[in-house]
Amino acid sequence: MQVKPINKEFEKHIVQTINQKTKPVGSLGQLEDVAAQLALIQSNKAGKLVNNIEINKPTAVIFAGDHGVAEDGVSIAPSCVTRQMVQNFLAGGAAINCFCKSNNITLKVVDAGIIEPLNNDEILSPESFLSMRLGAGTHNIAVEAAMSLEQVELGLSYGEQAITPLIQNNTNLLILGEMGIGNTSAATAIFAKLTGAPVQDCVGIGTGITEEQLIKKTALIEKAVSRFDSSNPVEILQQLGGFEIVQMTGAVIAAAAAGISILIDGFIVSVAAFVACKIQPNTRSYLIFSHESEEFGHQLLLSHLNAKPLLNLGLRLGEGTGAALALPLLRSAAEFYNNMASFEDAGVTV
Amino acid sequence: MQVKPINKEFEKHIVQTINQKTKPVGSLGQLEDVAAQLALIQSNKAGKLVNNIEINKPTAVIFAGDHGVAEDGVSIAPSCVTRQMVQNFLAGGAAINCFCKSNNITLKVVDAGIIEPLNNDEILSPESFLSMRLGAGTHNIAVEAAMSLEQVELGLSYGEQAITPLIQNNTNLLILGEMGIGNTSAATAIFAKLTGAPVQDCVGIGTGITEEQLIKKTALIEKAVSRFDSSNPVEILQQLGGFEIVQMTGAVIAAAAAGISILIDGFIVSVAAFVACKIQPNTRSYLIFSHESEEFGHQLLLSHLNAKPLLNLGLRLGEGTGAALALPLLRSAAEFYNNMASFEDAGVTV
Repeated sequence: MQVKPINKEFEKHIVQTINQKTKPVGSLGQLEDVAAQLALIQSNKAGKLVNNIEINKPTAVIFAGDHGVAEDGVSIAPSCVTRQMVQNFLAGGAAINCFCKSNNITLKVVDAGIIEPLNNDEILSPESFLSMRLGAGTHNIAVEAAMSLEQVELGLSYGEQAITPLIQNNTNLLILGEMGIGNTSAATAIFAKLTGAPVQDCVGIGTGITEEQLIKKTALIEKAVSRFDSSNPVEILQQLGGFEIVQMTGAVIAAAAAGISILIDGFIVSVAAFVACKIQPNTRSYLIFSHESEEFGHQLLLSHLNAKPLLNLGLRLGEGTGAALALPLLRSAAEFYNNMASFEDAGVTV
Repeated sequence: MQVKPINKEFEKHIVQTINQKTKPVGSLGQLEDVAAQLALIQSNKAGKLVNNIEINKPTAVIFAGDHGVAEDGVSIAPSCVTRQMVQNFLAGGAAINCFCKSNNITLKVVDAGIIEPLNNDEILSPESFLSMRLGAGTHNIAVEAAMSLEQVELGLSYGEQAITPLIQNNTNLLILGEMGIGNTSAATAIFAKLTGAPVQDCVGIGTGITEEQLIKKTALIEKAVSRFDSSNPVEILQQLGGFEIVQMTGAVIAAAAAGISILIDGFIVSVAAFVACKIQPNTRSYLIFSHESEEFGHQLLLSHLNAKPLLNLGLRLGEGTGAALALPLLRSAAEFYNNMASFEDAGVTV
């Protein structure tokens, strides 16, 4: 699957359109950037300049997976909470359910490999659920590879399969989220390995571990990162996991290859997006970064991606919550791009 | 009119409610703060703990006025643009119209004293328009008082009159915006005078003046600030204006006195809110700060108000645009407060 570069021939006209709106040039700040990016992505896909940005059936897909390293106590919660939260998503009770409801977003949940699969009677919204299990949690990355190369390849393909029906059904904005006790450890390890940055500079407290647990977590991640030698992003995924990160990487590449916009959540999803950009560098043009999370490494990661996110609310929850909260800003960006008067329309003195 | 202090007896229960939701404590960052503030304001008004936050008929009121100091060239645009933009608001073509539409907000426009009033045939949405003129623009504050004390008193009363019908119609969230060529000069002068801060530390480029114009603007504001001696907020309004700032001050006090939440926009509206807090210190508890604008003095002003705004998108447009963009975050805060499962509900291991 090949992600094509964005054709920039429409950029000049898009910027002109924005600059002729009845406001001082640049006065809508980042909202202008995101309007320009959406207009460019959609014009590129249409093969002609589109005068109206559309945000069609935006859908959040949450990938859930478990992590062998969690058995060493790198998180505030035990692995069983991943499964409980998947049930909570399907029952409509989690934060992401609330934000999808308030912002009119469809929600899908993927079991990418939690330890114990749900029974049929536990799947309260079967229409929102996909089982794409790569296993019963990854191996402990501090001691061995998270998964096999075959699992990585299957996982990238599952990521694509999870979103293809959405795109066929005209979704043109994909929101990614994740759930997985221990997954800041896997994400931090991947980020450190890909950039060569010291683990110390990338590791954070996740959803809220103590100073003592952070020291332990750092040591485990350092062990995982130094366990092997590679700069190949696919091999790094295999070594460090997790199942949900692999599948999100596949989903990002597939969405970019289909030419649609992807709204990225916090640290874990950003790491998957970073891996996707390493595999297919043209992917970057399709990514919109929703927020800077409280997770310590996120700021550094965003600077590696040359990304300036829309929100900075001190979130550290995951699930796609930051991305869901940012969606109304994209709708407002589309609305001003599509319907705000130009100086000429309004008879305003330039 | 008296703004009563918030009764904090419900605070402990509200924080407990938030902490029992299925998420790590504090992991929704500022969204938790705003949920707690809304729940507290609404419980205070109801006289009992409310289990559901309601955001009812949110309405943005834009106050427009002209400024004598604009004749000295402190802005990128001439004063006639104030009138043109009021027409643009009533025709539905401005940025604030777009954001009100995308975020389901009612819009009202008040002529607080633009130079030339609109003719009846220019008022395209009469149901959205209020004429509450205090004059044909203020006097030039660099040389004389902006207005008389009678005008200030009438303006504070007009601000109250503008919002009273909304509150009677069950609006429980007021959004304030403004339009007025030259009004960053008036707002900066008020802020500097009230705090004693050097004008140099408060003044900015507004919607985009040059370095040379900024030097001139700074000198004019310094002249205005040093022209008289007072620390009385009402007298400072009289001396420095403008009509829209006075009316917004009145609207803020009246909304707080009625016990409803007020969503504050950028620098100019924040100055009006700051004056309101100087007149009635209890007002502060009812204020939610939507965004930090690009205007240089806003950060300092927000620190004086001990405020951490929700957005920081590099906006410098006014009109209430930042506040309108922040409203969906309040709706999401209400949604999670009202409907997110507790650990007990969801059977999630604490």
